[in-house]
Amino acid sequence: MAASLDPIIALTRDGMTAVNSIIVDRMQSEIDLIPQLAGHLVASGGKRIRPMLTLASAMMAGETPEAKANAAKLAAAVEFIHTATLLHDDVIDESNMRRGQQTANAIWGNEASVLVGDFLFARAFELMVETGNIHVLGRLSNASARITEGEIQQLMIAGKPDTDIDDYLSVIIGKTAELFAAAAEAGGMIAGGDDALNNTLNNALNNALPNALKDYGMALGIAFQITDDALDYDADETRLGKNVGDDFAEGKTTLPVMMAYHDGDADEKAFWQRTLGDGDIGDGDLAHAQALITKHDTISRSLAEARRHAEAAEQCLAPFPASPARDGLMEAARFAASRAV
Amino acid sequence: MAASLDPIIALTRDGMTAVNSIIVDRMQSEIDLIPQLAGHLVASGGKRIRPMLTLASAMMAGETPEAKANAAKLAAAVEFIHTATLLHDDVIDESNMRRGQQTANAIWGNEASVLVGDFLFARAFELMVETGNIHVLGRLSNASARITEGEIQQLMIAGKPDTDIDDYLSVIIGKTAELFAAAAEAGGMIAGGDDALNNTLNNALNNALPNALKDYGMALGIAFQITDDALDYDADETRLGKNVGDDFAEGKTTLPVMMAYHDGDADEKAFWQRTLGDGDIGDGDLAHAQALITKHDTISRSLAEARRHAEAAEQCLAPFPASPARDGLMEAARFAASRAV
Repeated sequence: MAASLDPIIALTRDGMTAVNSIIVDRMQSEIDLIPQLAGHLVASGGKRIRPMLTLASAMMAGETPEAKANAAKLAAAVEFIHTATLLHDDVIDESNMRRGQQTANAIWGNEASVLVGDFLFARAFELMVETGNIHVLGRLSNASARITEGEIQQLMIAGKPDTDIDDYLSVIIGKTAELFAAAAEAGGMIAGGDDALNNTLNNALNNALPNALKDYGMALGIAFQITDDALDYDADETRLGKNVGDDFAEGKTTLPVMMAYHDGDADEKAFWQRTLGDGDIGDGDLAHAQALITKHDTISRSLAEARRHAEAAEQCLAPFPASPARDGLMEAARFAASRAV
Repeated sequence: MAASLDPIIALTRDGMTAVNSIIVDRMQSEIDLIPQLAGHLVASGGKRIRPMLTLASAMMAGETPEAKANAAKLAAAVEFIHTATLLHDDVIDESNMRRGQQTANAIWGNEASVLVGDFLFARAFELMVETGNIHVLGRLSNASARITEGEIQQLMIAGKPDTDIDDYLSVIIGKTAELFAAAAEAGGMIAGGDDALNNTLNNALNNALPNALKDYGMALGIAFQITDDALDYDADETRLGKNVGDDFAEGKTTLPVMMAYHDGDADEKAFWQRTLGDGDIGDGDLAHAQALITKHDTISRSLAEARRHAEAAEQCLAPFPASPARDGLMEAARFAASRAV
């Protein structure tokens, strides 16, 4: 049977109800535009995999009831950070579709998207402050800085299909995997309460858990982003919920293109340079790009690379005792590299 | 003798040297563009009044040596938050001049300005985390949320010269005064250590100090912004270091215009509606706007309003024992409503 998010969704159903009310509550403001704009994105229904990671990680670490409430706040904070980066990304990419809907900047303009992103980022820190755990704050503020570094590096490799694989990995670690890693690690950190931990795990494993969750989240995030990048050239728009070929139109340098460029002949390299490199894209160019990607089989090869990272993610949690939380997280990793949505 | 910033500058000279090294140190990144872009703004030399407020407030509260190091970190964090908002403002305003220099977005593009702003904001929180004081973190994250609310509200009153004065005050409190208030209050909060406080102040005053510093900063910030708004129609470009008439060109609703609109006849109201309201601005319109502002004497009247808030700021600190820090802060308030630079 195909891997699925169903187990982690079922496991975190109650927690996510709490997270969703926090999200709705904390996007309120006397300035009506803020809940309108933020609500548009929130209601457009991402999978909310990041907050689920925080909740399931806290469960795996054996949360106390108090930790449960704090984990929900952290999970909402993680989703706010993610939502803020999406708002700013859409400004940067000049996208007008995301998750099958018009983007906020297309409706309300860039100014409002920049500022509401800033608002959600500030709200995320207010939520983290309420948990009273300054170590978690440190972890998530560091992740936030790294996200922006990844996004800036992404601008710098844009239009360069000859980019080194290490630079590509560095970009997707920054822009995606750091927040997955921090989301999972923060769940593990907040669930502490030595008593809770001692009840479920022996001490050596105890101390290792937040770090293992961090490594798990990092590998999972890499798998998730490579899959996303591969499907951008493949899935039809209704399935993926964004415009197919967006990455091509924006000159984004992603793995399927880098592989096709690397293995291409001089004509093919010239094609990638003209289109992705120089932004000179005309009718039929997206179809030709997809044909070259099919010729070199780079969607499958990218997905194989994603699977390798997903397996590494699973291995991070394998040493810990089986539990619904651990097993749900492990299956989520398998799903990340196989998802068709 | 005219009020001056010289006393607070002299008082915080050593501290600001520490703050400046923290700023230079923490804007570093493996991504070269970040220190380049951030350094451009930092080097363009604002007055850094906000971090000076934090340092002088900590002094006034009787800082311990440990608190001194933490106050420098907080002061740098406050300047990072301010710099981040400037970067995002310039994207929103489409400005290409600030402090007499080209803006970052004019040189590097909007994308980089949005992302480096986000980076500095995240770095600000990392610095605050290092102080270990979660109450200060709460205060500054709340201020950050309010800044964005003020900026969004500013977009909403743009082009509306008939705006209510309460709405204008709400905008400038959000976009400017909240950070002044949090900068001063945070200095007072971090300097605690009950011993330090008890050495310098009696207990009742002690407990009241952070709150008094908050009220002081709030009133000072209002005075500062009203003065800035008034001088935008008055000072020549070299003195103010920005383009005179920027606010007019951007359709910003500020006090001198609101007063001139309120007191204007039907023709004058129609002029403001066409230019500031509808953005239909041609040759000679700025000069005509300035003539109307002179006719109704609204620069002087705005500056009188600023002085009223500056005096209120002074009164907040008057109950506390005289000290170089208190006196420097009080003179800074007088300066805020008289500055010609």
